[in-house]
Amino acid sequence: MSETPDSAVQTVRTYIEQHRAAFLDDLVDWLRIPSVSAQPDHAPDVRRSAEWLSTALTRTGFRTVEVWETAGAPAVFAEWPSDDPDAPTVLVYGHHDVQPAAREDGWHTDPFEPTVVDGRMYARGAADDKGQVFFHTLGVRAHLAATGRTAPAVNLKLLIEGEEESGSPHFRELVEAHADRLAADAVIVSDTGMWSEDTPTVCTGMRGVADCEIELYGPDQDIHSGSFGGAVPNPATVAGRIVAALHDADERVAIPGFYDGVAELSDAERELIAELPFDEAAWLRTAKSHGARGEAGFSTLERVWARPTAEVNGIGGGYQGPGGKTIIPSAAMLKLSFRLVAGQDPAVIERAVRDWLAGLVPAGIRYEIDFGAPTRPCLTPLDHPALQSVARAMSTAFDGAKIRFTREGGSGPAADLQDVLAAPVLFLGISVPSDGWHAPNEKVELDLLLKGVETTAHLWGDLAASLRGDASSR
Amino acid sequence: MSETPDSAVQTVRTYIEQHRAAFLDDLVDWLRIPSVSAQPDHAPDVRRSAEWLSTALTRTGFRTVEVWETAGAPAVFAEWPSDDPDAPTVLVYGHHDVQPAAREDGWHTDPFEPTVVDGRMYARGAADDKGQVFFHTLGVRAHLAATGRTAPAVNLKLLIEGEEESGSPHFRELVEAHADRLAADAVIVSDTGMWSEDTPTVCTGMRGVADCEIELYGPDQDIHSGSFGGAVPNPATVAGRIVAALHDADERVAIPGFYDGVAELSDAERELIAELPFDEAAWLRTAKSHGARGEAGFSTLERVWARPTAEVNGIGGGYQGPGGKTIIPSAAMLKLSFRLVAGQDPAVIERAVRDWLAGLVPAGIRYEIDFGAPTRPCLTPLDHPALQSVARAMSTAFDGAKIRFTREGGSGPAADLQDVLAAPVLFLGISVPSDGWHAPNEKVELDLLLKGVETTAHLWGDLAASLRGDASSR
Repeated sequence: MSETPDSAVQTVRTYIEQHRAAFLDDLVDWLRIPSVSAQPDHAPDVRRSAEWLSTALTRTGFRTVEVWETAGAPAVFAEWPSDDPDAPTVLVYGHHDVQPAAREDGWHTDPFEPTVVDGRMYARGAADDKGQVFFHTLGVRAHLAATGRTAPAVNLKLLIEGEEESGSPHFRELVEAHADRLAADAVIVSDTGMWSEDTPTVCTGMRGVADCEIELYGPDQDIHSGSFGGAVPNPATVAGRIVAALHDADERVAIPGFYDGVAELSDAERELIAELPFDEAAWLRTAKSHGARGEAGFSTLERVWARPTAEVNGIGGGYQGPGGKTIIPSAAMLKLSFRLVAGQDPAVIERAVRDWLAGLVPAGIRYEIDFGAPTRPCLTPLDHPALQSVARAMSTAFDGAKIRFTREGGSGPAADLQDVLAAPVLFLGISVPSDGWHAPNEKVELDLLLKGVETTAHLWGDLAASLRGDASSR
Repeated sequence: MSETPDSAVQTVRTYIEQHRAAFLDDLVDWLRIPSVSAQPDHAPDVRRSAEWLSTALTRTGFRTVEVWETAGAPAVFAEWPSDDPDAPTVLVYGHHDVQPAAREDGWHTDPFEPTVVDGRMYARGAADDKGQVFFHTLGVRAHLAATGRTAPAVNLKLLIEGEEESGSPHFRELVEAHADRLAADAVIVSDTGMWSEDTPTVCTGMRGVADCEIELYGPDQDIHSGSFGGAVPNPATVAGRIVAALHDADERVAIPGFYDGVAELSDAERELIAELPFDEAAWLRTAKSHGARGEAGFSTLERVWARPTAEVNGIGGGYQGPGGKTIIPSAAMLKLSFRLVAGQDPAVIERAVRDWLAGLVPAGIRYEIDFGAPTRPCLTPLDHPALQSVARAMSTAFDGAKIRFTREGGSGPAADLQDVLAAPVLFLGISVPSDGWHAPNEKVELDLLLKGVETTAHLWGDLAASLRGDASSR
């Protein structure tokens, strides 16, 4: 269908208005569960989060709701078959785990006690990703209300994993194990964002990520920097040299082979990016940063969307307490992550990093390097019919606004779904850059959250047609 | 006097044997006080340590004992005038504060509960420096017992400061304020070590040290390394680049001007060093290190004794907990220290570091750099008569062993005493490299500690003669 009738738009809005309060109350309940997958102490909370979500999805009307175990944290699978035997199948992906958060990191409120101020809900996971998972519950109900159906226009499946913030170490295994039950004609990834409050956009791809931790061991214990300084290798110095060797003077990643296979931006893609209303000063404010800096020859947007990176997530070694301690530390450590773009293979990157590192560590320093499970990059062609469906549904929710296309600098396990299920991957997100993913005071804009609900309410019908290849959908 | 009579040697040994148990009991008492000057929480303990020492010195027989206040931790001054009106004056320097220590750093026993195992006393400060201060108490009593005097052969003064492990920030001020009362013909620094258990040596100089802490500020809070990575400067990356810029490929310090004025080793000095029975493998074991590495063109001993260095004492930034956290950290920090040798001026080094750093920090990163109070390097000519006295007294204590000469890679405020008091500075130490200064499981060898007592028992008479220029002392 090329346009959603005004009556359907109004029915959806009325339905959402009627159920908004209960929907937000439920979300608050869920956000109170500190489902931090990176911290072993929170493993019971991640499980509690999965169980909470299962109950909520059952209440929503999903016919099948299951907690799927992994070697790590559990995922939630839910299914609501269409009443149309010809309906295509859509799989929604999201995650119910969250980044670590502690009040002392700079939160103004308890990160696990959601607080609404000026139409924003502050809580860890509000935007990334519980809010953006949860809008599907009210969305499918609004879809039924607007269409008078008793089941969705598509066979609707949800897979909400519990380890995304830990790099989805068991996700591919999980998807492979359940590939038949996850089979879908399209995947909707509900874990991205849009350009801004005023510029609704659909994301067409995400960067991948490979991350590693490097431990460097020097003296068997901290030793006196006077008695021994200048004559033995210092692991903290080596850590610094590794960091410095990550980039060349043009801020290109200097690891040999790192750029092999990178899908370079076409001139047309660069133009599309350049046309976006990008305000670098405003972007820097959102980034809470005081300068733009990156790979020579690329704009800021190109750097975060389409170029691979190497970043230091953490570095530590020696004495970090108050005052001085004149030691050569016994050990130092680095946490590095590499964002990857289409054409890069995480396995190749891991080998390249290992080879590069081996050449940097001097005699007298022992090291260990461990990689987390990588996340592959993902990119959807701009002319894909299902992508156009997503843009149309979003435009309807946003009062007919022109929908533009972006990419996402962050990473998700979308590529695993694409690979295993052989289905196109689409991205639907209503989060905005100021939401502060992974940062203190993460929030979600409540009006945008409800636009997410509204978009999905219109999406399933449109997508059912475009995935069937109906002429009427163009 | 060229030789100490056998009877005096025997009297001293008998006296020490009789008082050994009480002496060690007292030392244990003192070591129980965690006088960690670098940690503000321990300020009351540093004061308690000063008071404890005052009481002990009064009991020893010092006629004047005073706690001297500084803007930081208190020092202890004590004086015992000679009964010889022509006696020269000797000032002993040491410190009663200690390095930080915590059981979890790798101590096998509580660092502040001294434990004797196999003739070694394990405790923070056992060697650095409480043990080496405390041997002067029994030493001066043994000197009186052996000579039958009621007062020392020299006017004996002690200045035991409380901030040496924090870089002696108020020491020069203290010495200047009390220069008249501290006036001396020679200074004995009792805060160094000797070559090994088998090779008694006298130290002729110490390196100086300048240290600084650098704070680097990037984004106002930790930000998502996917959403923003590759496009804003990362303070942890900058920290690494600063570390890497400290040295060139020859491991020479690469800060412009750093080597200006450095007193280069003469061929004769290099030969004297080369003659020492140096076993690099054994030295590495003492250093708990697994490789020798340092400035090209110099031996290990030359590197630690006679060459300036730059070391990373601490580095930190971003997420250092378990698992991963894909952030660009908001801040990073570095603790650096620079060992200095004769000819280097800490003020010049500080300016050089500040200028160098300013050129390394990119736009978008704010930084602060704070220097602690520096300690100047110090070097005594090998042919100084008083140095020969120290060597003779030590030889007597060590059964006539040949005394060799070393330097000390560590630092002490000896140069301030030299400057302000215009007196030669001599070093007397019985600590050995395996004592583990600044490290977990610091210890002192009890037999060497008592050799320290014995050395001082013989030293005051010899030094009285050599400082007066008596022909008989050659």
